[in-house]
Amino acid sequence: MDYETFELGDITLQSGTTLPSAQLAYKTFGTLNAAKNNAIVYPTWYSGQHTENEWLIGAGKALDPEKYFIIIPNMFGNGLSTSPSNAKAPRERGNFPGITLYDNVRQQHRLVTERFGIETLALVVGWSMGAQQTYQWAALYPEMVQRIAPFCGSAKTSRHNFVFLEGVRAALTTDAAWAGGWYQAPPEKGLRAMARVYAGWGFSQAFYRQKLDLSLGFASLEDFLVGFWENLFLSRDAGNLMAMLWTWQNGDISANELYHGDFERALGAISAKAIVMPGQTDLYFPPEDNEYEVAHMPNAEFRPIPSVWGHCAGCMGINPADGKFIDDALKELLAR
Amino acid sequence: MDYETFELGDITLQSGTTLPSAQLAYKTFGTLNAAKNNAIVYPTWYSGQHTENEWLIGAGKALDPEKYFIIIPNMFGNGLSTSPSNAKAPRERGNFPGITLYDNVRQQHRLVTERFGIETLALVVGWSMGAQQTYQWAALYPEMVQRIAPFCGSAKTSRHNFVFLEGVRAALTTDAAWAGGWYQAPPEKGLRAMARVYAGWGFSQAFYRQKLDLSLGFASLEDFLVGFWENLFLSRDAGNLMAMLWTWQNGDISANELYHGDFERALGAISAKAIVMPGQTDLYFPPEDNEYEVAHMPNAEFRPIPSVWGHCAGCMGINPADGKFIDDALKELLAR
Repeated sequence: MDYETFELGDITLQSGTTLPSAQLAYKTFGTLNAAKNNAIVYPTWYSGQHTENEWLIGAGKALDPEKYFIIIPNMFGNGLSTSPSNAKAPRERGNFPGITLYDNVRQQHRLVTERFGIETLALVVGWSMGAQQTYQWAALYPEMVQRIAPFCGSAKTSRHNFVFLEGVRAALTTDAAWAGGWYQAPPEKGLRAMARVYAGWGFSQAFYRQKLDLSLGFASLEDFLVGFWENLFLSRDAGNLMAMLWTWQNGDISANELYHGDFERALGAISAKAIVMPGQTDLYFPPEDNEYEVAHMPNAEFRPIPSVWGHCAGCMGINPADGKFIDDALKELLAR
Repeated sequence: MDYETFELGDITLQSGTTLPSAQLAYKTFGTLNAAKNNAIVYPTWYSGQHTENEWLIGAGKALDPEKYFIIIPNMFGNGLSTSPSNAKAPRERGNFPGITLYDNVRQQHRLVTERFGIETLALVVGWSMGAQQTYQWAALYPEMVQRIAPFCGSAKTSRHNFVFLEGVRAALTTDAAWAGGWYQAPPEKGLRAMARVYAGWGFSQAFYRQKLDLSLGFASLEDFLVGFWENLFLSRDAGNLMAMLWTWQNGDISANELYHGDFERALGAISAKAIVMPGQTDLYFPPEDNEYEVAHMPNAEFRPIPSVWGHCAGCMGINPADGKFIDDALKELLAR
C-alpha cells in the first residue's frame, strides 16, 4: 500500500445515514513546514485514485514537494476510501448510501485539521469531480482556503451534465448482471456499454475529427474504444462507479446548511484567489457554466484551456500542452 | 394507410446481399405538373416516418402542395419501407442486412423515375439522416437535382458521430432481451436506456441550462426524460432502430462505385444550388463538418440555424423560430 488511512469512526452523512467505521485513504507528498502554511489539498476525480493525480506533482512543477505539503484525499466511493466495494455491513454494495460533495469535504477537513493541525491551505486544486470538491472546500471554509484552481469541473452539476450521466448510468444498469449492485461477477457487458457511452463525451468532436485517438497509439477507432475506454471501465468496480456517479449527479456546493441552495451566495462566499480553467471544448463541463460562476466569485479569473481534448484537457497530462497550461497557471496562482 | 407502396422486387444491395420483395413506402403531396419539373424529394430521418416530415409542408410554406409535387420516401428500416420488422425471410429481424445511404437513394431514384417519369428535381431536402440522403441524391444524380437543403446532417458520418452512436447501440443491446434482434417482447429496458443516452445528445447544453425542456410542457427533468425520450424510443421497433443506426454509422456519400471513397470529389460533384443549415449547437452533426463540406461544393452556402435547440433545431418545428428559419431558407432557395 502506497497510501495511509484516517479512521473517521461512524460518521453521519448529510442524508442522515450513518456510515459505520468510515475511512479516508490519502497520500501525502513533501513536508509540512513549521508554520503549517504550505499545505495543498488535491482531491481525486470520478473513478480515479490518488496515483492518477500524481502526474501534476514533481520537482520543478507548481506542486513541488520540495516546497509544498500536498495531500491527496481519495473520494468516497473510489475503492480506497469507504466505498460500496469495501464498506462494512449494513452499508456495503447495493446498500451504500448517497454521499455528497459536502460529506467528502467535511471529512477531508477533519483529516487536514485533526491529523495534521493545519489551519490554512495554500491551495486546493482538482480536475473534474476534484474541481467540484475544490469549489466545495472554498465555499465551506473560505477563511482557510487561500487559493483554488478547479479545472474542467463546475460548482454545481448542470442539468445537461446530469442527463449525460443518466445515459452512463442507464447503460451500466441495463446489464442484468448488475443486480442492483449485488452482482456475483462484474457486470462486464454493462461496463463496456458504459465505456462506449462515455467515449463520445470524454473528448471533443474536433479530437475525433483530427484522429487524436490514433496519436495515443491505437490502431483504429474501434481499437481506441476497446483499448482505452472499455479497458478503463473494466478496471473499475461497478458499484463504486455508481456511488461516485450519485455524488456527481447531486453535486451542488450550496446544498447544505450554510447556503440552503442559494448557489450565487455560495459562490460569492468564495474569497480565495481563483483561476478557473474549463476545457474550451469540454462537452459536459462546458466553459459557459464556469463563466457564470466566476462572475459571482469576488477574486476569480476565468481562463479556458485552449484545447480540442474536451474534458480530457485536464486528464493526467495525456496532452502535454494542456498539462503545461495548467501547471503554468498553478505557478502563477501560487505566486499571488 | 395514408401512404402508397412501390414494389421494388428482389434488389441487390451495395453489400452484395439480395433483399427479396423489397418495398418502398412513400407519400405524395400536391400534383406533378405537365412539364414534370415541380417535384421535390424529402426523405425521412432516423426512426421517423413520413408523417413526421409533414410539419414542413403546407399552404403558404416553401413546400406548398399548390405549387410543388412533394414525395416523401420512407427510409429502409423505418418500419414502413422494408425493415427488420416487416422483411421477408430469410432477411427478417436479426438477419436484416446493412443498407447504405446509396441503397436508399438508388431505390428512391427508381420510384421517382419509374413510377412518375420525373427527370428533374426542383429540390431535395431533409433533416438529419434525411440530410444525409439529400447529399447522396445530389452526389449520385447531379444532373437531375437542381437544389438541395440538407439541415442538421452531414454528407459523411464523422468519427465522433460514430462514437456517439456506439453508445446508443451499446445501451440498447446490453439488454439481454434484445437477443440479437430475435426478441420475443420489445427490449423495453434497453430502449429506455437508449433514450437516456440519446437525451444528452439531442439538445444542447444551453437548452438544458435554459430549462427549455420545461417549456415543452414537462413538469421536471425526469418527467422530460420519460415523457419525451423514453416515450419516443418505446414507440419504435428495436430491430428497426438498430438497422437505421447501421445505415447512419456507415453514412458516406462517396462510398460507392462513382467516387470510391474520394469524399472531396463527391462533394465537388454536387452542382446543385445548396443552402446547408447545421444547428449552431448541434452536438453530433456540428457546424464544422458542414463548413468543410460547403467549402468543397461549387454552389453551396453555409447558413447555421442560430438556435440553442441543438440537433432538434431541425426537429418537427418544435421550436417555431427554427422552423421559420428553415422555411424561409427553402423559399429563398426555391426562388433561385
